[in-house]
Amino acid sequence: MNAPFSASAGMSMLPHPYLLFLGDTEQAGFAKTAFGLRDWAADKCVGELRLTDATVSTGLTAMSPAEARSRGARAMVIGVANQGGVIPPAWRASLVEALEAGLDLIAGMHMRLADLPEVAAAAKRLGRRLHDVRVPPANIPVASGRKRSGKRLLTVGTDCALGKKYTALALAGAFAERGIDVDFRATGQTGIMISGGGIPMDAVVSDFEAGAAEILSPDAAPDHWDVIEGQGSLIHPAYAAVSLGLLHGSQPDVFVVCHEPGRTHMLGTAGYRLLPVQEIVDLTIALGRRTNPSIRCGGFSFNTSALDADAAEDLMARESERLGLPVADPVRGGPAFDALVASCLA
Amino acid sequence: MNAPFSASAGMSMLPHPYLLFLGDTEQAGFAKTAFGLRDWAADKCVGELRLTDATVSTGLTAMSPAEARSRGARAMVIGVANQGGVIPPAWRASLVEALEAGLDLIAGMHMRLADLPEVAAAAKRLGRRLHDVRVPPANIPVASGRKRSGKRLLTVGTDCALGKKYTALALAGAFAERGIDVDFRATGQTGIMISGGGIPMDAVVSDFEAGAAEILSPDAAPDHWDVIEGQGSLIHPAYAAVSLGLLHGSQPDVFVVCHEPGRTHMLGTAGYRLLPVQEIVDLTIALGRRTNPSIRCGGFSFNTSALDADAAEDLMARESERLGLPVADPVRGGPAFDALVASCLA
Repeated sequence: MNAPFSASAGMSMLPHPYLLFLGDTEQAGFAKTAFGLRDWAADKCVGELRLTDATVSTGLTAMSPAEARSRGARAMVIGVANQGGVIPPAWRASLVEALEAGLDLIAGMHMRLADLPEVAAAAKRLGRRLHDVRVPPANIPVASGRKRSGKRLLTVGTDCALGKKYTALALAGAFAERGIDVDFRATGQTGIMISGGGIPMDAVVSDFEAGAAEILSPDAAPDHWDVIEGQGSLIHPAYAAVSLGLLHGSQPDVFVVCHEPGRTHMLGTAGYRLLPVQEIVDLTIALGRRTNPSIRCGGFSFNTSALDADAAEDLMARESERLGLPVADPVRGGPAFDALVASCLA
Repeated sequence: MNAPFSASAGMSMLPHPYLLFLGDTEQAGFAKTAFGLRDWAADKCVGELRLTDATVSTGLTAMSPAEARSRGARAMVIGVANQGGVIPPAWRASLVEALEAGLDLIAGMHMRLADLPEVAAAAKRLGRRLHDVRVPPANIPVASGRKRSGKRLLTVGTDCALGKKYTALALAGAFAERGIDVDFRATGQTGIMISGGGIPMDAVVSDFEAGAAEILSPDAAPDHWDVIEGQGSLIHPAYAAVSLGLLHGSQPDVFVVCHEPGRTHMLGTAGYRLLPVQEIVDLTIALGRRTNPSIRCGGFSFNTSALDADAAEDLMARESERLGLPVADPVRGGPAFDALVASCLA
């Protein structure tokens, strides 16, 4: 799939191709940065590095930093987005090894590479650079709430890590294929690494959260679309503040609800069940109409990777009938996805 | 009125009494820090300093920093909380003058005193201290969503600057007068200056907003109450992220909706009308039940300072009848406020 990436300043400064580092991460949901780069920036990835046999894999060739360097890699990317954005001590020897092999490091964690003494010292000694992507711009304004020109679509979700970025990238690509003037707007570290621009919304001070969303998608031509990557969920007990600031500041005309059928509990948060997608629609409209009274749901994006093709198609057809809007899996594409695109643009 | 202040580390380290600095602020709503200190920490305030005749006044004696120092003042407090938390250039000569007069400076702005070169240089030269209250603690965790022991009340609002802090202080005081074990939990700079502890919630990175609210009101005895100062409004186009993170992390059993009758538009945000209080009740329950399924509205706190006593009493009686819950103005007190307290404790 293709998506319109305004490959600009940020990205062109990031050295690539990449070696994808997975640490000892055993839950695929936490390795979404690596999977996102594999799927949306495959030409920039030469291989992967895992610390244990139980670690998740992207399917790319396993290699050491030295092997990656010999195959042209210029940086190792930490391909994991764990809770709290920490870089565990067990990973740090590998980070230093990558620097010693001649690679820069790229990370999108709350914890910054530059704040790890052994990593910072090695980078300085070796003349390598540390790229912390999860640093928001300076001087973000307080949101004004002013209605901006142009059209906007935001992906929202029933939880974290179930397809909000994928859906936004796929929709932006489909819009572009239909000749529409569109920009993908990245709000997380992976999207920023893929597209070369954006704002890491979860790293913004909360008083400026909606203001950051406002500058992320500025005034545009009346028929221009910004397709904005969603974050978290309005029902997530830890991250809903991010989701609401992004919703208010994005003032979307259309939103798409992303969901993973079969996921019963929220990732990494004990005891919290997911809620029905219709509740997410209702909450998003109740809150989003504050900054855009004409907000509407364009449909649903289901991550059906756990189902076979027939079961997925059957489920999505039934849910579309029940919900009265298109339901599609952007990874599977097909007529259902075309219907979702058409509904968003209607 | 009295409120239970666990006067602790933070406060005892702030030098007082204070000279209250109002700059050139002409809207009373932005001077809430000065008014809050006058009303809730009167014994710590010796006077005020205004830059123009049009500047709002606390009614305290006007005096220069040197006069304040001669009357025992030990610090000048910036008594203003403007949009964005900036310290305008026009104020800075007065800040330096205060340092030269022998006063420390205390501020709760996003912009830090220590980041103003002329102020930092003067403080260093004169051996004075700069106290930036709006700095959150380090290492705030991601929220767990775990239900904590003890009881919690949160004040919420239809807008900023209409009585959420006052209401929380008054309710905490009333609880204490009834023999209840209670703590007031401050979430903004003024509350922190008054009570000596708390977390400046609007300065917390959004990914940790709910986590900050969780550590603000930790596990407690089953019959202990935390009365938590609300921030912003779920319908505020700039600050709703703060409000939602605070709501989720506070997991209140009871909330009180604060409102100023007659205010038609949101403070400092052009074009946004306030919404009916019942909509705030509905939104707060729809979102708050995520972390506390038994959340309920205890009643309404009206800021009736623009009305005479009869008109205020009449309005509150009618609104209480219409809404089916107590409506009171904590500044006026009386039976209506007793009813609100009883409803919260029911």
